[in-house]
Amino acid sequence: MVRTLQVAVSGLGRMGVRHALHFLEKTPRASLVAVCDPDPQARAWATTHLAPYGTKIYSDFDEMLKHPGLEAVCVAGITTEHAPQAIRAIEAGKHVLCEKPLSVDVEMCEAVVKAAAEKPHLKVLCGFSRRFDASYRAAFERSAKGGIGRPTILRSQTCDKFRNDDYFVRYAEHSGGIFVDATIHDIDLALWFFGANSIVKSVSAVGVNARYPGLAQHADVDNGVGVVEFWGGQVAYFYASRIMAAGQHDVTEVIGTHGKLTVNQNAANDLVEYHEPNGIRREIAQTYYDRFGPAFVTESNEFTECVLDGKELPFDLSGAVAAVKIGAALQEALRSGVKLEFDETGERISKANL
Amino acid sequence: MVRTLQVAVSGLGRMGVRHALHFLEKTPRASLVAVCDPDPQARAWATTHLAPYGTKIYSDFDEMLKHPGLEAVCVAGITTEHAPQAIRAIEAGKHVLCEKPLSVDVEMCEAVVKAAAEKPHLKVLCGFSRRFDASYRAAFERSAKGGIGRPTILRSQTCDKFRNDDYFVRYAEHSGGIFVDATIHDIDLALWFFGANSIVKSVSAVGVNARYPGLAQHADVDNGVGVVEFWGGQVAYFYASRIMAAGQHDVTEVIGTHGKLTVNQNAANDLVEYHEPNGIRREIAQTYYDRFGPAFVTESNEFTECVLDGKELPFDLSGAVAAVKIGAALQEALRSGVKLEFDETGERISKANL
Amino acid sequence: MVRTLQVAVSGLGRMGVRHALHFLEKTPRASLVAVCDPDPQARAWATTHLAPYGTKIYSDFDEMLKHPGLEAVCVAGITTEHAPQAIRAIEAGKHVLCEKPLSVDVEMCEAVVKAAAEKPHLKVLCGFSRRFDASYRAAFERSAKGGIGRPTILRSQTCDKFRNDDYFVRYAEHSGGIFVDATIHDIDLALWFFGANSIVKSVSAVGVNARYPGLAQHADVDNGVGVVEFWGGQVAYFYASRIMAAGQHDVTEVIGTHGKLTVNQNAANDLVEYHEPNGIRREIAQTYYDRFGPAFVTESNEFTECVLDGKELPFDLSGAVAAVKIGAALQEALRSGVKLEFDETGERISKANL
Amino acid sequence: MVRTLQVAVSGLGRMGVRHALHFLEKTPRASLVAVCDPDPQARAWATTHLAPYGTKIYSDFDEMLKHPGLEAVCVAGITTEHAPQAIRAIEAGKHVLCEKPLSVDVEMCEAVVKAAAEKPHLKVLCGFSRRFDASYRAAFERSAKGGIGRPTILRSQTCDKFRNDDYFVRYAEHSGGIFVDATIHDIDLALWFFGANSIVKSVSAVGVNARYPGLAQHADVDNGVGVVEFWGGQVAYFYASRIMAAGQHDVTEVIGTHGKLTVNQNAANDLVEYHEPNGIRREIAQTYYDRFGPAFVTESNEFTECVLDGKELPFDLSGAVAAVKIGAALQEALRSGVKLEFDETGERISKANL
Repeated sequence: MVRTLQVAVSGLGRMGVRHALHFLEKTPRASLVAVCDPDPQARAWATTHLAPYGTKIYSDFDEMLKHPGLEAVCVAGITTEHAPQAIRAIEAGKHVLCEKPLSVDVEMCEAVVKAAAEKPHLKVLCGFSRRFDASYRAAFERSAKGGIGRPTILRSQTCDKFRNDDYFVRYAEHSGGIFVDATIHDIDLALWFFGANSIVKSVSAVGVNARYPGLAQHADVDNGVGVVEFWGGQVAYFYASRIMAAGQHDVTEVIGTHGKLTVNQNAANDLVEYHEPNGIRREIAQTYYDRFGPAFVTESNEFTECVLDGKELPFDLSGAVAAVKIGAALQEALRSGVKLEFDETGERISKANL
Repeated sequence: MVRTLQVAVSGLGRMGVRHALHFLEKTPRASLVAVCDPDPQARAWATTHLAPYGTKIYSDFDEMLKHPGLEAVCVAGITTEHAPQAIRAIEAGKHVLCEKPLSVDVEMCEAVVKAAAEKPHLKVLCGFSRRFDASYRAAFERSAKGGIGRPTILRSQTCDKFRNDDYFVRYAEHSGGIFVDATIHDIDLALWFFGANSIVKSVSAVGVNARYPGLAQHADVDNGVGVVEFWGGQVAYFYASRIMAAGQHDVTEVIGTHGKLTVNQNAANDLVEYHEPNGIRREIAQTYYDRFGPAFVTESNEFTECVLDGKELPFDLSGAVAAVKIGAALQEALRSGVKLEFDETGERISKANL
Repeated sequence: MVRTLQVAVSGLGRMGVRHALHFLEKTPRASLVAVCDPDPQARAWATTHLAPYGTKIYSDFDEMLKHPGLEAVCVAGITTEHAPQAIRAIEAGKHVLCEKPLSVDVEMCEAVVKAAAEKPHLKVLCGFSRRFDASYRAAFERSAKGGIGRPTILRSQTCDKFRNDDYFVRYAEHSGGIFVDATIHDIDLALWFFGANSIVKSVSAVGVNARYPGLAQHADVDNGVGVVEFWGGQVAYFYASRIMAAGQHDVTEVIGTHGKLTVNQNAANDLVEYHEPNGIRREIAQTYYDRFGPAFVTESNEFTECVLDGKELPFDLSGAVAAVKIGAALQEALRSGVKLEFDETGERISKANL
Repeated sequence: MVRTLQVAVSGLGRMGVRHALHFLEKTPRASLVAVCDPDPQARAWATTHLAPYGTKIYSDFDEMLKHPGLEAVCVAGITTEHAPQAIRAIEAGKHVLCEKPLSVDVEMCEAVVKAAAEKPHLKVLCGFSRRFDASYRAAFERSAKGGIGRPTILRSQTCDKFRNDDYFVRYAEHSGGIFVDATIHDIDLALWFFGANSIVKSVSAVGVNARYPGLAQHADVDNGVGVVEFWGGQVAYFYASRIMAAGQHDVTEVIGTHGKLTVNQNAANDLVEYHEPNGIRREIAQTYYDRFGPAFVTESNEFTECVLDGKELPFDLSGAVAAVKIGAALQEALRSGVKLEFDETGERISKANL
């Protein structure tokens, strides 16, 4: 019989539940052998939906790490636990698929990278879902083949649909801010298309609170624009929002010296158009998962394949640290109003030197 | 000083007013010297809007023909007068731009062609507006250059926005039916893309009355589908409707052996998109004139240029007869439920021969 | 532990392999316990790809039916075997998911329905993949809720990308013709949107051979246009082609009395656009499976769920017969050049009566 | 007879020729009575194309101002002459339509405004063509009616097609830089949608030279990204480029608190789509005039109408100064790398105060 990867999922919140189901139902070469969550309600859900398939349910992460035969852990709980759990899993010799961001704190991110570096035989992946999306991959493939010349300008936005509740305000308490939480995806795209070794030259950001004044208490905004200049003549500029009317609207365009690629410029959730008295209408994704659901499934399958077959992961963990660094710099630039500058080695030029 | 073409417009209904204004304001090389309409209200409009620019107003067409120096006439009144007025204008030695159709009656159409043939120095044009539309011209140019191989299948629709009144029912009394009135444009496109010498092999049609039961009294329908097979392996199929929700929706696609062209497949009235809670919306043309207004202006300018400069008209009058013949055949096929067949010379194969 | 449906797949050609993998990898509640194929090469593939997961491989369909514990069979081999195998599976007490068409022969289709009717506890499904497609479902849901008023006109096309080989010619030998093979999907859509009880009033069709003259030997065409009129004032018109340049291009629009829905009008394979010196380009699906792959996965999951949970199938088997009848009528109309007519009970009106 | 506005056009370069022809041929209520250009070649063109219609040709601007009966002047020559000529025309009692920008120098702009203020009976218009574009007007109308709530974020780009010559490099010598030359349109849009009284809070910009290294000698770039923050919680961010592959690509989106509008997001030059082996392609405008030609015609007609009928101009001259100020600030921010800051009265906060 075929051997399957013995996987556990930590955290059964919104994303954790999805990861658990992906490993259970949509990752043929993996078996979901364990899950853990400190919350009894989350465990009750697991008892109903996972236990019948043989998945063991734990309340404690470290107990779960001891599950017999466990090979890999998907860390998908609250952001503040990403890094600590990833590190403990690595130390316990487990392969790790960690939800993004590793941490909102750059030092914590680096600690994960260090832990992973000490166990080079382990696969440690930070889950940047867009790297697994078919459209982004088609665009990247085109770019990598030289189809647009040298990628020079990247515009990317991650924009959530407005919610008529206080979710975004509560969420901002621990999210690290809109650029760390949302724009991190766009930053990762810049590092993908421009190259992982791109060095930041300057970072600036502005933002407003248009509909969630409560965000101010967390020094956050509901609409932010950030610009990152790289040494070598490349610029990425970003927009993040929590107030889109039509839905989740994530768009990227990459302008190269000889062509341009866009992803989701002409957004649509499916192939239907509605002809109505006031025009022709199409619907777009309502949530991040509506848009990127299939990418998460590709992610769990490729992670599994890389572990089982000893393949290289599609991208390096260090990029996850670089992305958080840039996100944190954008957030600082937003809060301080100051344009941050960096030398050609990427070192921050202190204000005094300006 | 520059000489301008001395033009008169007959009929100041919806289309006539537009033709008059096009010649007055948007055709630099023409002068609108006269108009005529038997209706006092129409003439009152002209007194206000045209007379100040020196345009003479007539109540009688034949009087207007005698206007000193008159060189050309645009026949734009009611359909039943198209052919008689065009013939009288030709006989009076005037160039003619006649609104489509020449007539709903094939013999009348042929009488116009005969009259024109006797005065070969006169320019006589039937106003198929799509032939002057920039998008159709771009498509045709591509096709003519072999860009899609041999044009083989043509799908075309002329579809009006639903009106909450009895306009379409009243109009049907004299329109010749939906295939003669609306589909005539699509038929003309088939003759353009397939070639003016294309010979019809068979004609069939079906239709329904979905929202205007009153059309039945004129043996007409508010939704019709017609298929025209040509000898030589080409097929055109048509859809006409009076009940579109979103607006005037005229679409054409031409499938060649090696490619395909579409016109207005992804309809939009302008470049605006509205992002709203239920999706992304664009608006489309509400009326035929919304969609083809600029084509009418091109038409009046090119007609003027051909007369003044002695150039060939962009297409031959005989096609207008061929189009009406096919429209009438579709209408007969619709009413009788019979598929009409024609031999390789285009002669109708009588039922008895089937 | 959770019980899974014990499924076998018959036929490991292009579609059979996909069905086998869907049940193996993408249908969590099913287990692929057996496959069969008379072809040793097909079985060799299965030995490599399926046997390691415990799937038993048979060369003989009837032997496979005796597989211990087998509950359901997916019939996915050559079209001529669909009906015979489906009937034997039903007689053996197995649930059946049969690829479309049940047969190109109407009587054979009816035999399957009869067999199924005798075992009402069995689930017998004909795999019309579009019924499981998310976009078609969104459109149908909208229509079913009255969102477009009464569906009145349906236009639908199934168009394959041109292939530079003799595949389509060879395939035509057994396919039943383009309307039975390709348009059957569009016909099924008409029966879905207009209602399963819709009664045909007339059927007409024309076609040409633009690029595959070899099709003539099978009395088939590479471009066909068909029109089906239903009693009660509804019309469906269809286009099928084997010569599309850009890819698989399947489009449907449903015009209701008060609105319109389109599916894949603005076709795109993904969300990428390429900005190049000659314009902005997007790519479309290259094959039927590119376009409908996810629908097939939904199909295997819903079939499984209906069997395991004793739910109603999403649509009735009898529609599959009605669709084949209409497809065969279109093919007859194409070959004979005659418009076929039917009375209000759906009985063919003989020529003599015309 | 109808009285027409007696108009002269100064400068017969690329834009001047167009303005001349618009007044001659497409502005029924105006008469092009005079033109001037110091270049003999330009005057030769006028002799051929304008003189036959009675237009008088001058080599000297001040001579032209004395043309008997002259009422209005369109200033359309080189940018450095915009302000001086506009001022002399105003002083001579002529209405003025001046091409944008009034000047690349803020003080010069202010001098024009001052001159105009002293002759309040004169109409003085700065030709921001997008204000006359049908799509921008539809979007603004929607916004002005509250259709998107309060406009909060504006993204706008003016991007030229790459030219394989040194045009852009030569042009940069006098253009004032990419933000003053190209982005000025986008800045004007921000002032339109956010309100003419919007006060700038900060300005930052970055840029690169991707294909025209020669621009460096003019301290200019071929790709620039700028961000303008306004007091009151509004942000505009801009992108300008000279290297687009597909064509002139000018896009704007306005995000309001309750909705979003886009203009030209889904760019297309006409309604044709080309289905080819590598996908579906549409073409976009190749030049600024391809995109905005009809807006220029609307501009000349509305300017004429406002003068003749004593109507208010659609927007105020002062906005033109504000736009140049912001453009110049962006250019300074680009060159210095410094983020410029302004207090709530719009006064620059000096570095020393930071």
